[in-house]
Amino acid sequence: MPEFRKDPVVDRWVILAADRAKRPQHHAGKNEPAGTDPCPFCAGNETMTPPAVLTYNLDPNIGTWSVRVVPNKYPAVVDEGGWTGHSDSIYQTMNGLGVHEVVIEAPEHVVNMGTLNERQLEQILHAYRDRIVQLQNDQRWRSILVYKNHGAEAGATLEHTHSQLIALPVVPRAIQEEIDGAKKYHDAYGGCVYCAIIDQEIGAQSRIVAETGRFIVFCPYAARFPYETWILPKQHAPRFEYGSKEDYIGLARSLRETLIRLNCRLENPPFNYLIRSNPLDEITDPYCHWHMEILPKLSQVAGFEWGSGAYINSVAPEDAARHLREVIF
Amino acid sequence: MPEFRKDPVVDRWVILAADRAKRPQHHAGKNEPAGTDPCPFCAGNETMTPPAVLTYNLDPNIGTWSVRVVPNKYPAVVDEGGWTGHSDSIYQTMNGLGVHEVVIEAPEHVVNMGTLNERQLEQILHAYRDRIVQLQNDQRWRSILVYKNHGAEAGATLEHTHSQLIALPVVPRAIQEEIDGAKKYHDAYGGCVYCAIIDQEIGAQSRIVAETGRFIVFCPYAARFPYETWILPKQHAPRFEYGSKEDYIGLARSLRETLIRLNCRLENPPFNYLIRSNPLDEITDPYCHWHMEILPKLSQVAGFEWGSGAYINSVAPEDAARHLREVIF
Repeated sequence: MPEFRKDPVVDRWVILAADRAKRPQHHAGKNEPAGTDPCPFCAGNETMTPPAVLTYNLDPNIGTWSVRVVPNKYPAVVDEGGWTGHSDSIYQTMNGLGVHEVVIEAPEHVVNMGTLNERQLEQILHAYRDRIVQLQNDQRWRSILVYKNHGAEAGATLEHTHSQLIALPVVPRAIQEEIDGAKKYHDAYGGCVYCAIIDQEIGAQSRIVAETGRFIVFCPYAARFPYETWILPKQHAPRFEYGSKEDYIGLARSLRETLIRLNCRLENPPFNYLIRSNPLDEITDPYCHWHMEILPKLSQVAGFEWGSGAYINSVAPEDAARHLREVIF
Repeated sequence: MPEFRKDPVVDRWVILAADRAKRPQHHAGKNEPAGTDPCPFCAGNETMTPPAVLTYNLDPNIGTWSVRVVPNKYPAVVDEGGWTGHSDSIYQTMNGLGVHEVVIEAPEHVVNMGTLNERQLEQILHAYRDRIVQLQNDQRWRSILVYKNHGAEAGATLEHTHSQLIALPVVPRAIQEEIDGAKKYHDAYGGCVYCAIIDQEIGAQSRIVAETGRFIVFCPYAARFPYETWILPKQHAPRFEYGSKEDYIGLARSLRETLIRLNCRLENPPFNYLIRSNPLDEITDPYCHWHMEILPKLSQVAGFEWGSGAYINSVAPEDAARHLREVIF
């Protein structure tokens, strides 16, 4: 079973999951031919994954599923019992409890999410929502993270388009830090810092990539990475999973357009994305504001970043936003 | 000029340095031939870099320098004036003040630090010390970070063996967090947490890679990365730059042996290393303990890590340490 270990100096959890070293690689590098092994995520190969926990059938006439959610075959955390651990003097360990699932985003062997249509993206977002809502019924989970690794350089081991979901019995530091930062702003100024960011960005315009009635897409002021791009609902909303039908339609459109812009400008870059959604109870709703962060992987995180926790970014977000705005499609 | 920007939600600095996008690439990939452009770090090409700020001549009979420290030609921060900035509502910016230098570790075109001899490594460590001590005379610098990027996957753009040094007018979050964590332990238990780690590791033995009279080399209990390896002085010492002659001799030996172990076991992996040394005044000396962290780059940091600030590591440090111990040389 995997194991959580806590660093004895800083507040940082590490999950030791030795079985993940056994993951098969099924990935075409930029200049390599795709592997010839059968893809476990393609329709017809369902027996190559654990049984699905969620299956959508977009159109019964197609005769296959449209989106399928399965337990990760090489999980970082596993759902077995309660969360228990022990200390060994200065060291603290807990069993690797949690849920680790894979959202298979298309039945065909599509490798780029940006080539899916809006209706399919909407289904994927519905799958995220449905799994989050389902998992929230289990009191053991204190946070649920939805994320995507696209491309080998961004950590994907399989090329068939997919994303992942991890439910954990802790609120990890990056999530807690954002909540704490938002609370600090709320205590000082009485509002939501993300709503303030939206106002400021719409006023300045220089970092806006696109704006619709419901969403803004922009490169954040203190972007860590070249072409880092965020999508935020314009109206204050603490939780991704409480969206309306129209919200997911609007997000599917904004996400698809953003991926097309990134693909056109950066020639199908590897990237990660993640969804932030308030994991805590209602008291934090006034200052949590769900959003999506898209992080292209164009440069390497190096010694300076590991040593400082600061980032060196060689593309100003104003330039990145202008380049992305200029993409015609 | 580069620019510091602070994230409006979390305590994170980003340095925007557009000129760094102009860096030339002079790097042989794993299976690529080396470039044919002249290397700016080789002896004879000194005019390709800014004038040296430090030059050692190991042996006057050789007729060239042994280690050379030069300003970074594409700096992330620049040494111009004071630290000033302004706020634009929720956003805070400062001018990109600092010092960014390159330590050229050999006059010949050596690409792997592990192939240098102990005497040369000792000279490199002396160069780190001498530059830190010199820069500390300038009251503007509140932290100095020494780090190394080896291999393109670890962020190096030039293959000639080198490391870097950045002096900043701030104490960045990763450094402050470690100091805060060490202080918390000191306040609670009255000792140095790193000394406690050393005691525990020597007692357990399972994560020890090597031990000499002065240093222990081990894979830390909550290692973030496969084969992450730390070197610590066994006797409490807050500052790298206050070492004795024998300390640097001992460190050169332990570092060289560790690099050889990693190279043998992992076939010359890309890696980063960094040196932690107390940047603050003497009051923090009882709980700061300088050390070196070597971070092989065998897997990608992916969406889970960005989203959570936690890490998934597929190689237990006990296994990594055993594999590194078993290397015969």
